[in-house]
Amino acid sequence: MSASRSIGIDRARLEASIHELGAIGATPRGGLTRLALTDDDKRGRDLMVRWMREAGLRVSVDQMGNIFGERAGTAALPPVMIGSHIDSVPTGGKYDGQLGVLCGLETIRALDTHRVRTRHPVTLAIFTNEEGARFQPAMLASGVMAGKIALEDAYNTRDKDGLRLVDELERIGYLGSEPCIPRPLRAYLELHIEQGPFLEEEGLSVGVVDGIVAISWSRLTLHGVQDHAGPTPMRIRRDALVAAAEIVTGVRTIARELGGDLVTTVGNLVVQPNIPNAIPGRVTMSIDMRDPRDATLDVARRCLEAVVKAACEREGIRWELEHYWRVPYTPFAPDVVDAVERAANAAGTRFRHIISGAGHDAQYMAAIGPAGMIFVPSRDGRSHCEEEFTPMDDIEHGAATLFLAVMDLAGRA
Amino acid sequence: MSASRSIGIDRARLEASIHELGAIGATPRGGLTRLALTDDDKRGRDLMVRWMREAGLRVSVDQMGNIFGERAGTAALPPVMIGSHIDSVPTGGKYDGQLGVLCGLETIRALDTHRVRTRHPVTLAIFTNEEGARFQPAMLASGVMAGKIALEDAYNTRDKDGLRLVDELERIGYLGSEPCIPRPLRAYLELHIEQGPFLEEEGLSVGVVDGIVAISWSRLTLHGVQDHAGPTPMRIRRDALVAAAEIVTGVRTIARELGGDLVTTVGNLVVQPNIPNAIPGRVTMSIDMRDPRDATLDVARRCLEAVVKAACEREGIRWELEHYWRVPYTPFAPDVVDAVERAANAAGTRFRHIISGAGHDAQYMAAIGPAGMIFVPSRDGRSHCEEEFTPMDDIEHGAATLFLAVMDLAGRA
Repeated sequence: MSASRSIGIDRARLEASIHELGAIGATPRGGLTRLALTDDDKRGRDLMVRWMREAGLRVSVDQMGNIFGERAGTAALPPVMIGSHIDSVPTGGKYDGQLGVLCGLETIRALDTHRVRTRHPVTLAIFTNEEGARFQPAMLASGVMAGKIALEDAYNTRDKDGLRLVDELERIGYLGSEPCIPRPLRAYLELHIEQGPFLEEEGLSVGVVDGIVAISWSRLTLHGVQDHAGPTPMRIRRDALVAAAEIVTGVRTIARELGGDLVTTVGNLVVQPNIPNAIPGRVTMSIDMRDPRDATLDVARRCLEAVVKAACEREGIRWELEHYWRVPYTPFAPDVVDAVERAANAAGTRFRHIISGAGHDAQYMAAIGPAGMIFVPSRDGRSHCEEEFTPMDDIEHGAATLFLAVMDLAGRA
Repeated sequence: MSASRSIGIDRARLEASIHELGAIGATPRGGLTRLALTDDDKRGRDLMVRWMREAGLRVSVDQMGNIFGERAGTAALPPVMIGSHIDSVPTGGKYDGQLGVLCGLETIRALDTHRVRTRHPVTLAIFTNEEGARFQPAMLASGVMAGKIALEDAYNTRDKDGLRLVDELERIGYLGSEPCIPRPLRAYLELHIEQGPFLEEEGLSVGVVDGIVAISWSRLTLHGVQDHAGPTPMRIRRDALVAAAEIVTGVRTIARELGGDLVTTVGNLVVQPNIPNAIPGRVTMSIDMRDPRDATLDVARRCLEAVVKAACEREGIRWELEHYWRVPYTPFAPDVVDAVERAANAAGTRFRHIISGAGHDAQYMAAIGPAGMIFVPSRDGRSHCEEEFTPMDDIEHGAATLFLAVMDLAGRA
């Protein structure tokens, strides 16, 4: 029997919740497609709200559709907030986001089971559109809450079918009235899957997260000359996809050349007119670059600009490169990181310190109050895919760490 | 006054027809989007059928929706067929296909104006789905007529929305009953824009086409490992798009290395899941390769296989490469080519002999009977784009050449 069981997380109850919420938007191959503000997202939200009410929480919804459920404390103090998200990427997994929300719920249920009163309130938060898969950028609603993204801009963001975020919020009944603004916080805690290979490779159950990498998102449009693939001799071609290919290769090379922890990805690429017998006239693509050091990301951006210029000049085409999103390295609050480490120790968990390679709502919440995160392993380091998996033993250790850290930070009454 | 006017093509009437048919599916920037078997295609067909009936032609529609309008000859002999297509690629131009059909109509109208009787009948043909933009492969209906594609397979071809060709034929009212099988032909003639730069570069109005290049179409699927773009270190990535980029570059290199008239194009490329923060798990792409020499195309295919293998092994991913369509070099019938050259001379036209880099329905018709083609210039060599343009002076020379070649081959009664 593990240490965590002795301190009160109900593994069976947590596992049942994971399966029940994971059934909403489930894919045939064991994954999850539950894009933000779709009907499945609404069903997931409705289930969470029901569970939160059943747990006696006071539920409210803000202007961005963020859902909060507050468990009262014994003193008039700012809450310890436990948050994450329940939206997913297309054909994503059942752990990213949802696991953090459900471990938060289990923490609150466990506080009730053990009749623990805390001085600070404990609030469970579910953030809208964390993934950025349907509406961009990612972490849109925590960004609005932190004052980093204007509410108006977020409302007017459109999905690929042209639907506005605010209209979809209203359609599914989650356009709340509570202002989406910074609120006083004792601490913000988020449990999440690692989404990388390190914890599993080292046989650990928990990562005590020290901070989140800096992230740069760029958008590139290449204007080639659309023409017929047959009678157009190679010597007069200006093929947008040939230039794009050179840039995709160049983006990979930037990571190899600069080395260290830098990761670079072209995840989105769209060709026009995209038929076998026409030379591509236009290509749009995304460039995602991340590193713990902001300075490395500055260098990577300059390398990207050089790669794009070289490829486009070689092919003789016009281009537009827009660096449209940048988040600096986010260090977490030392006292929260320390509380997480104490909790991991107290839970008898094998852990290490780690830096998150993915953005999380915790990144924006760190601008509002003291924030920290707890990671659990991802099998084969995989996430944003149907194969996403974390063993229940590790989840139990993570949840116990969260439970103990919340009690520590909220203070037993 | 040009020589062509003296032999009876009515330039104003032809130009008016080009504008009227070109208005159906017209794009704001002067191009045309009239994909096969759409509502706009139906409207274009209806207009053509009306004009054919007004010209006194006996109109029939076959099982593939090909439309035929026959002008009787004085003897019970096989017809001279003038054909082309009126479907377009997305955001294509107003000349590709439509010009050949309308110069054919003008030829028949001019025969009437000048009360010319011919020994052989003269038939105007409009072929379904020449472009292959909506249903693949290209030249689907002439392929069925030539017995190269099974009717059943053609019927079951689906567009990207899953709609079957046969259902769309029925929906727009062009599922005819006449068998789509080879029919005796005195000759097949097709006027078409060059779609390449040579005639314009050399200041010529007409190309006497000797044959059509060999064409190879392949389809490649790359199976990478979808993962999160942030926490996945570069060392464990298996990125389908990185491999795809190397292959796009390699496909360009094949043309450069083998040289000569070989052209190679990746025109279609689709990424999954295609979001900025996921490593692409899957990419599908098309590879189009063309050369007048079949042997060169054999070598190019082997090079392609080597390029794909090298790229996929480097990235550690699985792939499927399917060579799904191949047409050998098509030489046109010497007597038809000679008739076109005599006509070009008689029309006082500046011309050269040329090989077509694009597939045309004439390619399949050459398997049924003696076939030939007439090219007119494309400004800047451009086609399959909204900027597609051919000057009316050149069109008039082309139409006069067609008119004279038809009279020559059909025989004045």
